[in-house]
Amino acid sequence: MQNTQDYQSEFLSYLENFSKNREPKNLYQPINYILKLGGKRLRPVLTLMSADIFNCDYKKALDAALSIEIFHNFSLVHDDIMDAAPLRRGQLTVHEKWDVNTGILSGDAMLIMAYQLFENYDPQVFQALAKLFSKTALEVCEGQQYDVDFETRDDVTIPEYLKMIEYKTAVLVGAAMQMGAIIAKASEQDQNGIYEFGRLLGIAFQLQDDYLDAFGNPETFGKQVGGDIIENKKTFLYLKALQFLDGSKKNQLEQLFTVNLEDNFEKIETVKQFFIESGSAEATQQEIENYTKKAFLVLETLNISDDKKLLLKSFGTNLMTRKV
Amino acid sequence: MQNTQDYQSEFLSYLENFSKNREPKNLYQPINYILKLGGKRLRPVLTLMSADIFNCDYKKALDAALSIEIFHNFSLVHDDIMDAAPLRRGQLTVHEKWDVNTGILSGDAMLIMAYQLFENYDPQVFQALAKLFSKTALEVCEGQQYDVDFETRDDVTIPEYLKMIEYKTAVLVGAAMQMGAIIAKASEQDQNGIYEFGRLLGIAFQLQDDYLDAFGNPETFGKQVGGDIIENKKTFLYLKALQFLDGSKKNQLEQLFTVNLEDNFEKIETVKQFFIESGSAEATQQEIENYTKKAFLVLETLNISDDKKLLLKSFGTNLMTRKV
Repeated sequence: MQNTQDYQSEFLSYLENFSKNREPKNLYQPINYILKLGGKRLRPVLTLMSADIFNCDYKKALDAALSIEIFHNFSLVHDDIMDAAPLRRGQLTVHEKWDVNTGILSGDAMLIMAYQLFENYDPQVFQALAKLFSKTALEVCEGQQYDVDFETRDDVTIPEYLKMIEYKTAVLVGAAMQMGAIIAKASEQDQNGIYEFGRLLGIAFQLQDDYLDAFGNPETFGKQVGGDIIENKKTFLYLKALQFLDGSKKNQLEQLFTVNLEDNFEKIETVKQFFIESGSAEATQQEIENYTKKAFLVLETLNISDDKKLLLKSFGTNLMTRKV
Repeated sequence: MQNTQDYQSEFLSYLENFSKNREPKNLYQPINYILKLGGKRLRPVLTLMSADIFNCDYKKALDAALSIEIFHNFSLVHDDIMDAAPLRRGQLTVHEKWDVNTGILSGDAMLIMAYQLFENYDPQVFQALAKLFSKTALEVCEGQQYDVDFETRDDVTIPEYLKMIEYKTAVLVGAAMQMGAIIAKASEQDQNGIYEFGRLLGIAFQLQDDYLDAFGNPETFGKQVGGDIIENKKTFLYLKALQFLDGSKKNQLEQLFTVNLEDNFEKIETVKQFFIESGSAEATQQEIENYTKKAFLVLETLNISDDKKLLLKSFGTNLMTRKV
């Protein structure tokens, strides 16, 4: 077994060789740009790790890992257009550096290229990977649509919110891990188990993201702390606070989530106070722990050695105690 | 063998059953909308016809036919955003009826659904179909990018233009026919031959489209006659006219293609006059005939009966003498 850094550097050198000077430039340059912007490369690392865990040369999973990363970046390019986001990883988004049309078309090409990366696998593996990929990709689209729909709804429930983040984020983490298992020709039970581990960890990861967005350390957290509060995003923290509050406090919080201000300092502090006092901050941390524990329980069902289970657990624990 | 109407009505009833009430509605309703808008259903009919020609129950090709039609409509939804087109087949475009974000996301979902339609085929056929599909879909994106690039270039050559329409339009016609042959398990030579037939016919079809846009009968032509001239589109007619003209006439035509007018009646008539007098109109018709003839020559290499060759020829001839 390798460590996370080894998978990551192997992946990065594979990515480096992937990018060619294809024509037309205006289609492929934005693709190279977004793929080189960086990021944690969490998903492709999980694909390689999963293949390794199921006793397969993890290099055989590099194409699938790259497919997952290209799909993830495709979804970022199109989502950034929809959110009119100017920056991604501190750099200009594709539609800002070029234009919206370029973002649409380059994104489309990335989605297709993600499928092409399965072509080197034999037909059975190809079909298994492509089926899982399509199911997952469509769920990601559905998750994005729910996210958009929630913006204009004021009756979003917590189960609905959890389903949204499951689709928008967690299923891709599950699929990334299952792909490694598919390539390693693991049993169906192990394939489903590792998917479930990834899916549960993915939900915990996204809840952690919500939490850090409000309570992260501005010195270490990559994004602007309070971004979700500024944008009135109905995250788990917010929905849980509404559930715990009543009367004038509830109205006050709801009222705060209708305004768009120039200076958000006071709003952020007030909302965070609501999150803490209502018990929502603690409930969110509890929920993160619950999902992480559920993910670890699934590990017990896998037909792998105990030290591999420990490795996956420590990866999950690192992810959940991260500050960035 | 069936006739074109039979394939079409079989396809339409298959399409009817495909659309379900999937959630989230805001993602899937636009997809149902664009798929029901109509159109000639040329590409799926060709897939069914091709399967039939290579001695396979053409109903086995319905999923591939639907995939091709969904991909075609995906490209229309995204292209219409890029062109800021208000109407499609006389009805509101998706981004007009809903909004740009809906058009982007519903289009993405359609591209994924197109791949999913191959899942009912066995792994070998699945892989062959998906590989051809990915290659073709990426070329369609590249063709669209060339089309966008050409708008701001004044040195587009005729070979470049032909490559653009080949990628943007013709390769999908070729792929539609090859998919029928793949499902029918035709020989590789026949598969490549029918692809080539479709590709050449596709180029002729698009040149015919350019020609009808200027010289079609307004009573029978579906779109606004002169649309390309109004938009200063560098079609084959225009590029060929520039090649044939020189001096002040050439300058005059180039000048006309820099203006955007309120009333285009006079501009359209003047430009059409240039197209006729320069010999470009005739050269375009000649080029259409050349590509059609090349397509018919390819038929001779196919391992199918003469009456089937005749059938494909008569289909091609109908397409090239169409007025709509």
